[in-house]
Formats: sequence, C-alpha cells, structure tokens
Amino acid sequence: MEIIKVESAGFCFGVKRAVKKAIEASEKFKGSKIYTIGPIIHNNDVVRDLEERGVEVAKNFNIKNSVVILRSHGVEKDILEKLKKNNNIIIDAICPYVKKIHKCVEELKKENYFIVIIGDKNHPEVKAIASYAGESFYKIISNENEINDFFKDIKKIGIVAQTTQSVENYLNICNKLLVNKGEFRIFNTICDSTSIRQKETIEVAKQVDCMIVIGGKHSANTKRLFELSKEILDNVYFIESEKDLDLNLIKNKQKIGITAGASTPENIIEGVVEKIRGLK
Amino acid sequence: MEIIKVESAGFCFGVKRAVKKAIEASEKFKGSKIYTIGPIIHNNDVVRDLEERGVEVAKNFNIKNSVVILRSHGVEKDILEKLKKNNNIIIDAICPYVKKIHKCVEELKKENYFIVIIGDKNHPEVKAIASYAGESFYKIISNENEINDFFKDIKKIGIVAQTTQSVENYLNICNKLLVNKGEFRIFNTICDSTSIRQKETIEVAKQVDCMIVIGGKHSANTKRLFELSKEILDNVYFIESEKDLDLNLIKNKQKIGITAGASTPENIIEGVVEKIRGLK
Repeated sequence: MEIIKVESAGFCFGVKRAVKKAIEASEKFKGSKIYTIGPIIHNNDVVRDLEERGVEVAKNFNIKNSVVILRSHGVEKDILEKLKKNNNIIIDAICPYVKKIHKCVEELKKENYFIVIIGDKNHPEVKAIASYAGESFYKIISNENEINDFFKDIKKIGIVAQTTQSVENYLNICNKLLVNKGEFRIFNTICDSTSIRQKETIEVAKQVDCMIVIGGKHSANTKRLFELSKEILDNVYFIESEKDLDLNLIKNKQKIGITAGASTPENIIEGVVEKIRGLK
Repeated sequence: MEIIKVESAGFCFGVKRAVKKAIEASEKFKGSKIYTIGPIIHNNDVVRDLEERGVEVAKNFNIKNSVVILRSHGVEKDILEKLKKNNNIIIDAICPYVKKIHKCVEELKKENYFIVIIGDKNHPEVKAIASYAGESFYKIISNENEINDFFKDIKKIGIVAQTTQSVENYLNICNKLLVNKGEFRIFNTICDSTSIRQKETIEVAKQVDCMIVIGGKHSANTKRLFELSKEILDNVYFIESEKDLDLNLIKNKQKIGITAGASTPENIIEGVVEKIRGLK
C-alpha cells in the first residue's frame, strides 16, 4: 500500500508561519501575558492548543505590557499603533502576501489613486487593508454589480484584492472599471495557495485508487477538494479526523491519496496517515 | 420634409482638426514648400484638394527648409527629430488623444514598466506610439492569443491601446495579462468617437422614416453604420456621394436621417443635404 499526500494539503504558508511564530513566542516569553489579535486560525483545536501554551485570544485592544501576536490576516493600522504605544512586544506574524497589499495601498494613496479593494468588507484582512488607505478615498467592492456611475468620473483608480478572492470575481470587477476612460493601477494580490492545493489534489487523484479528504464539514474549500476528487474517482472519503476513517473501505486499495482543506492542522493529517499505516 | 443629421457624422475631432490646420498652413505659408507626413486622411478627394492648395504628401523624410504638417496619427520620434534638425517649420496636427498615448508610454518607460501596446503593428499610429517606448522593452499585441508564457515572469506591465481599438479586444488582452501575478498600469486610451457616432446614428434612425449612410463602399466603419441603421429601419441607403442618391426613393418621406463614416468630408455630407433640400 502506498500513501500519496498532496504537498499543499492543509494550512497555507501564511497560516503555517503564524502558528509557528505563536508557538515560538509561547516558549520564548513563557510566563508573560501573550495574546493574539483575533484567533490565529478558524480551527478550535489549534486555538485550544495555543491557549494551553499560554497564548490567549485578546478580548479587546486595551492590552498593555504584554506580548502581542499579529495573525496572518493583519491588523488595522490604528489598533497596531495603540498596541505599540501601550508598551507591548509585537510579534508580527502577518502573512507577507497580505503585508504586500498594505504596501500597495500606501503607494496608491501616495500617488492619489482612488482605491478599490476587491473583497468582503466584514473580513478582518480587508478591514486591515482598508485602514492603510487612511484618509484617501476608497471603496470595498465585493462584486461587479457594485460598480456604478460613481466610478465614471474618477481619472485614476488603483485596485488591490483580498488574497482569497477568486480570479473570476477580480476580473469581472476590473473589466467593469477598465471600460471607463482613465488610468488604472492594478495589483493582482490574489494568493494562489487555494488554486495550487486544488490543482495538486487533482493530480494526486489521477494517480490513486481512492482519496481521503480531511477538513471541517462546513469548510467550503474542503468541500471543493472533495468535489474535484469525485470528478476523477468514485472512492472519495470526506472525514474530519482519523476517528471518522473506516479502514474497511480502504484496506484493499493499492494507492491512497490524501488531501486536506486550508484549516486542517498538520497533526490531524498525520493522525490519518498513521491510522492507515497501521493497516500494513 | 425634415432632415436630421447625426451630429458626429463624418470626420472625427482629430482628423477635422488636422485638415483645418493643413488648410490654414496652406494660406499662411503660401509659396513655401508644404508637406504632410503621410496622407492627412484616407480620402482621395481631401488629399487632392490639399494638393491644389500646395500641400503635398511627402515622398520621403529628407525634407529641408520646408513647412511640415504632422497628421493626426502622429509621427515616429526619430523622424520628427530629423525633420526638426533639417530646419523645417513643424505644424503639429497630431490628435491630442494620440499625443496623450505618447505621454503615457514615456511615463511607463520612465517607471520601468514592460509596455504592451494594443493595436495593429502596421498602423502608422501604432508605429509612432512604439517609437516613444524607445529602448525600453515593449510588444505590440493585436489579440489575446499573442499573450503567452513570456508575460508570466514580468512583474510590471504597462498597457496602452491604439485609439481605434475595440473595447472588447482591449478587455480580452487585459484579462489574459491580469491573471498573472504582478502589477499593471493600464491607460484606457481608446477614443470613443466611433462608438459615439454609432450610438447617435441609432438614435437618429429611431426618429426617421429613412436613413442615408454616406461613405466609401469599402469603409468598415461606414458599413457598420449601415448595418446598425438596417436593424431599425427597412429604408436605408448606402451612398458614396450625392451622385449615388436616387431622390425617387425618398421623395415621399417625412423625416430623413443622415449619417456618415469617419472618412467622409463635410462637403460631401453637405452636398447630399443640398440635393435633398432641392426636393422641397
């Protein structure tokens, strides 16, 4: 029996890095108050594990004389300034791809572009991005129907996108703007970790006899990995952890593929691998 | 009988302006050698009329001690420099919208963008635009199939378009580039004189009993005006000048619409109007 794991399965680069930095901080600053600004990832197991290591999710921003970890999503500019002023040690675990967007927005602001942020205005990543537009004019746009006559008279439009936006939505919005007269400065800031994970999942599904997809039942990106695998194979099993895995279903398979959604931690994936190895 | 003429019928703003400047130059510099760099418009009547006024189309660029009129399309940078060096009086009749593109290209060059010029590489307007990209890297792209992997590794791409490009082709090419990672600075430099002429022709066609479309039989933009009118009215007549107009066809009409392609001079349009007025 051979197990082929999708290389990009599980956490994306930015989340992996943030969790690692949080664990390192919990060791380095043992005994200090350590906070993250918002949960480091939407996975309760990981958040609980960090709590056990002394890393709490901050209840508000009035933190003083503590260690503060900025998660991959980023933090609004004024909150960051307040945290710095209040004598906290700042551990910057903001995803470098997200940080790049802050820089793009600052550059667009300096050059007097009206800034369009393609994204979900309630998402913390987008709120943080918007905070870098500061006093300059900007709008957060989630789909092309929000592009109206308002934009027709704007001569210089700068565009950035939330890292998790679909390329399709980004192009639809750009197209609606690009027909107007004027100048556009567009930064394609979409992160391709999701599309790479999907592509690699398809590649592995083509080589195996069955596929195990690991992730939360409500995780949209994990469901998508399940659907994509199902288009190639009949035997695809969607599980949350090794507890859900029925070994009888896979015991006669020669090659088993494993993939996992973006919020699935490495130890859950490893747990599944170990359980299958126990079959041998 | 009422005659409704499409306001934007005939020459576009840039060509109208160039012809006017050529006529003015022929009066101001009477007796001097006066040349245009390339025919001022693709209309033999107009070129012949200018020749009679002493304005010749230059056979080469070795012109000295003369008056040189730069037509609306623009002129390649090195040719312009040569003309200036050779003690010529330069009459700049380059369309301001085309000149804006030269400025955009120079700005993109200064900021180290790889420049994509959307257009037809054999067209004089595009050749002149490209000359402003100078030594910097650029490519002239006529359709999205020419966008290949070459562009994937380019981090900063600047885009301009020939004034007469279709919005559809411009968007198709932009879309093929915008999916790549990186930064894009796009100037929508498409001139809307063609689309305005079309829109106004449709508006007039809706108000009249018949439509007269004036222009060369081989002129693509005039044919389009004929087709658009035909979608609204049965009685649409495509003529090159008043000689082709059969008054019997329109004598019982109450309202007559008149439109004309981009290369149709005002005196041809007026000739048609006069012939119809003779019916009254």
